[in-house]
Amino acid sequence: MRSVTILGATGSVGTSTLDLIEREPDRYRVRALTANCDVAKLAAAAKRTNAELAVVADENCLPDLRAALAGTETRVAGGRAAVIEAAALHADWTMGAIVGCAGLEPAMAAIANGGTVVLANKEPLVSAGEVVLAAAAKAGATLLPADSEHNAIYQCFDFERPERVRRIVLTASGGPFREATTEEMRHVTPEQAVAHPNWSMGAKISVDSATMMNKGLELIEAARLFPVPSDRIEIVLHPQSVIHSAVDYVDGSMLAQLGPSDMRVPIAHCLAWPDRMPTPMAPLDLVALGRMDFAAPDPVRFPALRLARAALEAGGAAPAILNAANEIAVAAFLARRIGFLEIAAIVEDVLHRYDPAPPESLDAVIAIDTETRAITAERVEDCVV
Amino acid sequence: MRSVTILGATGSVGTSTLDLIEREPDRYRVRALTANCDVAKLAAAAKRTNAELAVVADENCLPDLRAALAGTETRVAGGRAAVIEAAALHADWTMGAIVGCAGLEPAMAAIANGGTVVLANKEPLVSAGEVVLAAAAKAGATLLPADSEHNAIYQCFDFERPERVRRIVLTASGGPFREATTEEMRHVTPEQAVAHPNWSMGAKISVDSATMMNKGLELIEAARLFPVPSDRIEIVLHPQSVIHSAVDYVDGSMLAQLGPSDMRVPIAHCLAWPDRMPTPMAPLDLVALGRMDFAAPDPVRFPALRLARAALEAGGAAPAILNAANEIAVAAFLARRIGFLEIAAIVEDVLHRYDPAPPESLDAVIAIDTETRAITAERVEDCVV
Repeated sequence: MRSVTILGATGSVGTSTLDLIEREPDRYRVRALTANCDVAKLAAAAKRTNAELAVVADENCLPDLRAALAGTETRVAGGRAAVIEAAALHADWTMGAIVGCAGLEPAMAAIANGGTVVLANKEPLVSAGEVVLAAAAKAGATLLPADSEHNAIYQCFDFERPERVRRIVLTASGGPFREATTEEMRHVTPEQAVAHPNWSMGAKISVDSATMMNKGLELIEAARLFPVPSDRIEIVLHPQSVIHSAVDYVDGSMLAQLGPSDMRVPIAHCLAWPDRMPTPMAPLDLVALGRMDFAAPDPVRFPALRLARAALEAGGAAPAILNAANEIAVAAFLARRIGFLEIAAIVEDVLHRYDPAPPESLDAVIAIDTETRAITAERVEDCVV
Repeated sequence: MRSVTILGATGSVGTSTLDLIEREPDRYRVRALTANCDVAKLAAAAKRTNAELAVVADENCLPDLRAALAGTETRVAGGRAAVIEAAALHADWTMGAIVGCAGLEPAMAAIANGGTVVLANKEPLVSAGEVVLAAAAKAGATLLPADSEHNAIYQCFDFERPERVRRIVLTASGGPFREATTEEMRHVTPEQAVAHPNWSMGAKISVDSATMMNKGLELIEAARLFPVPSDRIEIVLHPQSVIHSAVDYVDGSMLAQLGPSDMRVPIAHCLAWPDRMPTPMAPLDLVALGRMDFAAPDPVRFPALRLARAALEAGGAAPAILNAANEIAVAAFLARRIGFLEIAAIVEDVLHRYDPAPPESLDAVIAIDTETRAITAERVEDCVV
């Protein structure tokens, strides 16, 4: 029986994780579930799984949570510190699915326990990559990636013989503007940008998919997770997103993981790893699919790819700046304050303006994140004017 | 340093194996090389690799071999018994690449040594599958498949958790007549049938690819090699032959091996396994490839698929009969004695006529093989008249 904590239990990844855990109640015991303030969903999940602890990050929601779980054995708590405490309770397996930089400290607390920690968000590895990896190495924690691409690479990567890997092939759908010209992209609306062809996702990540910054951030994540030089990570466009990524070996064999576009596939892999568990999705049907296409990405039309690779190669604070500047720029685009093409332009500009020392602690990462957001917000104002 | 024997060193698989071994002379020591009668090629290979023993199966070729290797340290021998003796010398790794039923006894002799034996031909597993597997289990030998499809499955198959495999996807190019109607196939000439789109192969296997009997035989091989029920092995048409095969797991992950159409890729995998070794081929370039297609095979236009699955399910002598009858029928087609569609018709007829007891020894397999060939030859005469 494996004890499990879900940080961010009411979001899309958290809900999918609960769905899988509840299919095998004899295999998993729920230690803690956390949410921001979705009391109804959190309390229902805590009741169904008989969780030991339920926590809301927003203290104002604690009275409602207490009321909703009155008469159950589940303890309740509220506030950011309580979320971090929940993460620090020892669990064999922790899903880190809290969105944005708010997830950094809880993820670090879980990692310090030395169990298996699944990273479902990009921030821990993109912004705080070196800090997170050092903490995991120190605590003996196993990091598993829940992103479909990195999970695919994980399934195909021979960690015992990384020197036999020739390159990693990171696949990219190319997003909704894969075939658009730069001129066409200039006039893109938020509504057009959030219509992703293969995955149903939130607005922010959908825009990242449209600019291909999402793939740029994934490139940085891949470089953190897998011991290969960054110039051996190649991005290939694959509009059907069926090959989730691949690893090419020196002998000419390429191993790939394929699957349906359902987050439960990589989550199930992380949950049962190194075993596997049944999931309810229909098997991948290659015949029904009929066809897969591949093409080279275009770093001219999609400057985010170029920026991300440059930030990865620059190292230090650059990935954290890239990530934070992008978040603010995307929010400004979604608020119709700047145009689609200005997202990458602003990120590039902020990367040029701001050059702090490489962060060596989580606090330093958070300070860089905060400062970058302020600089980017100013830069957005300039654009709006 | 690993000792290596190549049974069938002058054919296409043997030559590819030598090519790889000679790239890492510090890693491999050549114990024995055998050939039928290609003395020039065998002697040259023995000299280059400083082989301990060189053997020709055809005793008439021994004087020439002796002359060619005079003054070297390589011992020479001739005759079928000498080939079997060479196979029985202990080598850590043996490539079994002797074509047809002639390869059965040498392969069995190598298996009895308990080392790693690579099966490059279909006969050992199709005709003598149960006998071969029992011998390998008894001797503690490891069988590795060099066929690109089975090698792909081997690379993706979790032998520690076979119960987590949902199905095996065996890919098939579909051969040159993938889109032909039965009526068009009726008039196919040997020249048309041997023009395979993706691989350069011998005439017999090219015809097997055109009838899809090749895929039927591979279906039987896969059922021997991998512990899954035969109804969970699915054949999928994939004309580009880039995904060499795949394994679909219960959690929705499908693992696939992809690669260039070069036999040296699977052979290198077998040679270095569980490590990997560099090979000289250009890496697989998905962008240059551009596209992969998938479709369902048609067992009506390609009755060989139906016959092979029926033979697999019938078990006993049926696979050996299928294989031997097919060999004779294909030879008759290549000799322009029967038409293309008659290959499968004759095989089906022989399977109905001949129903011996399940073979429990290699001798019994060889007797069934011999008897099947005689029955099929008669049946061919009927067709010609």
